[in-house]
Amino acid sequence: MTTNITRLPRVVIVGAGFGGLRAARALRNAPVEVIVIDKNNHHLFQPLLYQVATAGLSPADISAPIRSILKKQKNTTVLLAEVTGVDTEKQVVHTADQDISYDYLIVATGATHSYFGHDEWGEFAPGLKSIPDATYLRRQILLAFEAAEMESDPARQRELMTFVLVGAGPTGVEMAGAIAELAHKALARDFRNIDPRLARVILVEAMPRIMPVFPEKLANKVAKALTNLGVEVKTNSAVEKIDRDGVVIAGEHIPVQNVIWTAGVAASPAAKWLGAETDRAGRAKVQSDLSLPGHSNVFVVGDTALFLQENGKPLPGIAPVAMQEGDYVGARISQLAAGRTPEKSFQYKSKGNLATVGRSFGIADFGWLRLSGFVGWVLWLAVHIFFLIGFRNRAVVMFQWAWAYLTFQRSARLITFPSAHSLKRRELVEELV
Amino acid sequence: MTTNITRLPRVVIVGAGFGGLRAARALRNAPVEVIVIDKNNHHLFQPLLYQVATAGLSPADISAPIRSILKKQKNTTVLLAEVTGVDTEKQVVHTADQDISYDYLIVATGATHSYFGHDEWGEFAPGLKSIPDATYLRRQILLAFEAAEMESDPARQRELMTFVLVGAGPTGVEMAGAIAELAHKALARDFRNIDPRLARVILVEAMPRIMPVFPEKLANKVAKALTNLGVEVKTNSAVEKIDRDGVVIAGEHIPVQNVIWTAGVAASPAAKWLGAETDRAGRAKVQSDLSLPGHSNVFVVGDTALFLQENGKPLPGIAPVAMQEGDYVGARISQLAAGRTPEKSFQYKSKGNLATVGRSFGIADFGWLRLSGFVGWVLWLAVHIFFLIGFRNRAVVMFQWAWAYLTFQRSARLITFPSAHSLKRRELVEELV
Repeated sequence: MTTNITRLPRVVIVGAGFGGLRAARALRNAPVEVIVIDKNNHHLFQPLLYQVATAGLSPADISAPIRSILKKQKNTTVLLAEVTGVDTEKQVVHTADQDISYDYLIVATGATHSYFGHDEWGEFAPGLKSIPDATYLRRQILLAFEAAEMESDPARQRELMTFVLVGAGPTGVEMAGAIAELAHKALARDFRNIDPRLARVILVEAMPRIMPVFPEKLANKVAKALTNLGVEVKTNSAVEKIDRDGVVIAGEHIPVQNVIWTAGVAASPAAKWLGAETDRAGRAKVQSDLSLPGHSNVFVVGDTALFLQENGKPLPGIAPVAMQEGDYVGARISQLAAGRTPEKSFQYKSKGNLATVGRSFGIADFGWLRLSGFVGWVLWLAVHIFFLIGFRNRAVVMFQWAWAYLTFQRSARLITFPSAHSLKRRELVEELV
Repeated sequence: MTTNITRLPRVVIVGAGFGGLRAARALRNAPVEVIVIDKNNHHLFQPLLYQVATAGLSPADISAPIRSILKKQKNTTVLLAEVTGVDTEKQVVHTADQDISYDYLIVATGATHSYFGHDEWGEFAPGLKSIPDATYLRRQILLAFEAAEMESDPARQRELMTFVLVGAGPTGVEMAGAIAELAHKALARDFRNIDPRLARVILVEAMPRIMPVFPEKLANKVAKALTNLGVEVKTNSAVEKIDRDGVVIAGEHIPVQNVIWTAGVAASPAAKWLGAETDRAGRAKVQSDLSLPGHSNVFVVGDTALFLQENGKPLPGIAPVAMQEGDYVGARISQLAAGRTPEKSFQYKSKGNLATVGRSFGIADFGWLRLSGFVGWVLWLAVHIFFLIGFRNRAVVMFQWAWAYLTFQRSARLITFPSAHSLKRRELVEELV
């Protein structure tokens, strides 16, 4: 590897999500050597992952190879490897095959889903964080209708055509809307023995209302839009049990084969590597410059970081926060490396929140301005397409959406299984890397 | 299922490839009930599968859900199921969960790859027939460069950056060209420790020349085009051994980690179900009306059928043959069902052969006219896009190609593994269906 080919200070960035990539970009002209480590070869545009899970987009439409994103950045090397730990004393990052030393470390490893201590639910209520998660969910959702088509027992058919989403944050809301549309529009006339329009989509939330990050008025409009799409919204409804037979919600048992976990988020294990102080969600508590207490050369950004604002509230785990934190840390390290006095402490500037429900309804909250309905949706569309990395993806996605909007059809209705062959060779593959 | 909801004669079509779909279409106005059975939910545009394997297209770009293709065809039901056998006495098709009776049977189950009795080679030389095959190969090819990037031993690096394709038919040729371009163009500047332009792509053929279906003059032009792309073409070179360490070709051992099988094709086991007489490739010998000797209501089309022409030569296993056979059998059954005297025996009308090598070189053979070079490539492009099912896919693919052509970039450079979760739940899934 690139060990000792240079005497420049080395910045190791773990994770090429929104935070990690922004930090790398901010370092492109700095007098440092940058190593970006990710366990995937691609950057993933998380906010649109639910569209892959609901057969609207292909995985490649929302991904871009990390190497090509950074290929023109001569001071930067990309490494496909899984980080297993960090030694802050020796200033070394451990991976399966090698140790990589650093002068500055940026941890941007994101989050995973948490079952609030009920990991046994995981088997029956998969979450949505990665592309394999998304193609797996896509397969499950499409297979449910296939199974219902072949089922003669009406009760069992209903069971197969019921979808429960646990957690009414943005992902749960957008996913529920997309599944309802898939069932009620795209699949409507494709079957002979079932009517997909009878599919039930239930969105469950333990809190009194959905979309806590949005003002109540907007959230209520979203709830109304969901109802119009045929989604049943159940607030104040905690999930008590999930197993092979279905779910128990606020005492009521619902027989269902398709439960999707859109609730709890937990930070990656990174905080443990660092021996950092964390909150319940496992996020590492950082100082006003996003560095770790006692380690001025170790920074944590994005969903892995717990950054407390003046008002004592932590910043939410959303893309804009990760991006601004990445920009800040990148800039700060550039200044330190160049011997300049670094920026003042990090300040998050909210550019507003957006969400969408199915086709043509969206909400936008800029504090001073709140929009909903078609104009909110157009705004959502514009912003998401703008931030999609790489012109090509933008254009393809825009085309797919235009097409879906005009025809109600879905472009990626694929049921595929990992080939037996592929599984057989899997160890061999992992040996290779 | 749809058993006994109608008294119309029932036509069961096994396989929704080119042959099966064409047969179903030809029956859309016939006084029959049609049941199309496929083990996948999507029709696959096989001729472009190599583009998925080489990161040019996404799986969804070359697939369309069988249900939506046939949704307007009211006399037709689509069934997602794997056929396990046929009872020609009882006139019943067996699937995992049920038996389906037929009055007419059309077997269009296609082909798989054959290792000429060396099945142990399969583990080290995967073939390309399905979407899982293609995404698996895509992962292997991209991982090879990632592994080389992390390798310090130059010999091992060369080994990882060598690709051997066994069999120089259309798939082998098109795949070799695509891999060479991927390595020499798209990946050229993405790595820091390796130069992908040094990758070796070796196309091996046991016969004296490549592309046997084409006239020698055109085939030689293809060989030249491949050489210009940096592909090493070895004819008269039989493969003697394939294992973990590499391949032995005509006595010479080549250490290589990436061997791709583009040679032997064997018909699906359908012929065995039917107890039919077969050739070495396992294709069922059919009569001049594509029916099975002794079973005038059982037809075999496409790669599964062995149809001997007047000159005693069998028709090749290519899409146009399967399509025309499907059209013919569909029409014939319509006529029989309507009590009309059926068509005369099947006649294949060759519309010409096309092939392409990388960007902007193609060949076309219409017998009376032979083209090569850029005009051949444009023709190839036009024909393939025209035949891609569904306007949307056509447009997306056209766009991706235009983009790739202008930028040399690949749009689907994704390395994904089946999620452990997905594997854990796989039995559950299969239970469901």
